[in-house]
Amino acid sequence: MRSRTTSSELAERLLAGEKRALARAISLVENGDPAGAELVAGLYPRTGSARIVGFTGPPGVGKSTLIGALVKELRERERRVAVLSIDPSSPFTRGALLGDRIRLSEHFLDDDVFIRSMASRGALGGLAEAALQAALVMDAAGFDEVLLETVGVGQAEIDVVDHADTVVLVLMPGSGDSIQALKAGVMEIPDVIVVNKAEHPLTDTMVREVRTALSLGPGGDWKVPIVKTVAADGTGVSDLLDAIEAHRVHVEATGTLEQRRARNLRNEVLGLAAARMRRRLERRIAEDPAVAALLDDVVARRIDPASAAAELLARGGDRDGDG
Amino acid sequence: MRSRTTSSELAERLLAGEKRALARAISLVENGDPAGAELVAGLYPRTGSARIVGFTGPPGVGKSTLIGALVKELRERERRVAVLSIDPSSPFTRGALLGDRIRLSEHFLDDDVFIRSMASRGALGGLAEAALQAALVMDAAGFDEVLLETVGVGQAEIDVVDHADTVVLVLMPGSGDSIQALKAGVMEIPDVIVVNKAEHPLTDTMVREVRTALSLGPGGDWKVPIVKTVAADGTGVSDLLDAIEAHRVHVEATGTLEQRRARNLRNEVLGLAAARMRRRLERRIAEDPAVAALLDDVVARRIDPASAAAELLARGGDRDGDG
Repeated sequence: MRSRTTSSELAERLLAGEKRALARAISLVENGDPAGAELVAGLYPRTGSARIVGFTGPPGVGKSTLIGALVKELRERERRVAVLSIDPSSPFTRGALLGDRIRLSEHFLDDDVFIRSMASRGALGGLAEAALQAALVMDAAGFDEVLLETVGVGQAEIDVVDHADTVVLVLMPGSGDSIQALKAGVMEIPDVIVVNKAEHPLTDTMVREVRTALSLGPGGDWKVPIVKTVAADGTGVSDLLDAIEAHRVHVEATGTLEQRRARNLRNEVLGLAAARMRRRLERRIAEDPAVAALLDDVVARRIDPASAAAELLARGGDRDGDG
Repeated sequence: MRSRTTSSELAERLLAGEKRALARAISLVENGDPAGAELVAGLYPRTGSARIVGFTGPPGVGKSTLIGALVKELRERERRVAVLSIDPSSPFTRGALLGDRIRLSEHFLDDDVFIRSMASRGALGGLAEAALQAALVMDAAGFDEVLLETVGVGQAEIDVVDHADTVVLVLMPGSGDSIQALKAGVMEIPDVIVVNKAEHPLTDTMVREVRTALSLGPGGDWKVPIVKTVAADGTGVSDLLDAIEAHRVHVEATGTLEQRRARNLRNEVLGLAAARMRRRLERRIAEDPAVAALLDDVVARRIDPASAAAELLARGGDRDGDG
């Protein structure tokens, strides 16, 4: 039997960059263990050094393979890399496909690479909250780079990609819906766009469509680069990393990195608070017979949804429990 | 100057199906006027008769044109139709394109057709809340059919399409990202799938891809029909309406309509309450110097986001104001 490590021992080992301590810390956070929250609170002043890069995009475009290739490239540049995948459709999350497993296995014994995924299910207290805490822990553990993988459907109250210093949107030839969403302004403009699977004959058409979509949006002082990659064989991965680094240099030089981080952190606090309130409310609905009766009245069309919501709040449904 | 109509007069005219009264009621709701909420509360027992059909899908697939064609088909079947568009990329919302304007103008003088759009901006108190209230008002006004148009990116806490008895996903050839999202299980399976712009040579490929994606998902007792349409010339629109009606017959026969409506209404109450709490919190953050100082501490890495969220809740940030 393993002896129980104290929180400060764990924090010390983690700050020293020990991978087992990091894995344990993330499990605490994922399980909603109060020791995890305590650990993050203690480590937080030691965060802020890592470069956080968020990868988003529809499923199937090869985000995980691309991240695998980037890890290799980053290791060649002697950077310490942590990866956190919270894309439920990702091979990292689902159990890697054979190809990815081979590509990633070369990193398993590398002390300077740490890969972790979180499934949607199971994260007690909210996946997004757990993921944000995990990213902070990775940052504290001294990784130079923290790569976050999320699927671009954004249904969460807190989008982990919003925690990133640089947001990379990954597309592929055939990503017509994403192009339309960019054009229509219903998808936020990322910092870097990748067209992966660039061996496809329609790649250049896709690049042109991306360029058109971008030209319709608001122009900032950063010109969004469009990088073609074939993640499976590493083509273009070095260019992608250069584009990410150029963005980093740009936001540091213009002072927008600090602004972005401040805005992100504020949104995180708000999102975390809102998500906790919602969970309290859900618990209350499940547990309180008076609330169940109120909902039955809504179904029976005796009281309308907005009035019922107001009554729920007036009854203090947002005050019970501690999140 | 118009004399001020009382709430009960407005309700009476609305229940009689008067379009001007309906337009006024929706404006009250959209502006967050307490008279709007009062009106909906009074009308709610008179709702539940309309068939609510939700249309979702990426921008650019032709949802609005399709809805325009469906309105025509429904009028031929002598149904009274109301349309509510809350898709920010919709021509209904943005100001109709010439083609749509011509197609829809034939309905402007028809007392049995009512078309309304809501922009993301401007809806005080939350777009989703206003849209749900508007749908209830349309229902109370005696329309047989209420068609809801939303863009399928689902970032809202309350998704209006969840209010629907039947959910129609509209795609087109080239909707690769949506197919991947269906395959990966990150997009919910709709009740009916439309492949619009079916004049495109790759339509049958798309239909096969949709079928494959569906075959990977959980099989229910309802087999999701895939309908090919060319909304611009009306091709397939009658088939689509038949598919929607077949779904309606199915959910009524199996008793799942009542279950679905009960579940939807419960989720709405929860979503409305959560959204109100979040707005209170946002207001508090904007107005309370102590909260602003707390956020500054997060940015300065003196207190971590989760602890700050907990402190915000403990300080009662969720109690001020009334939503």
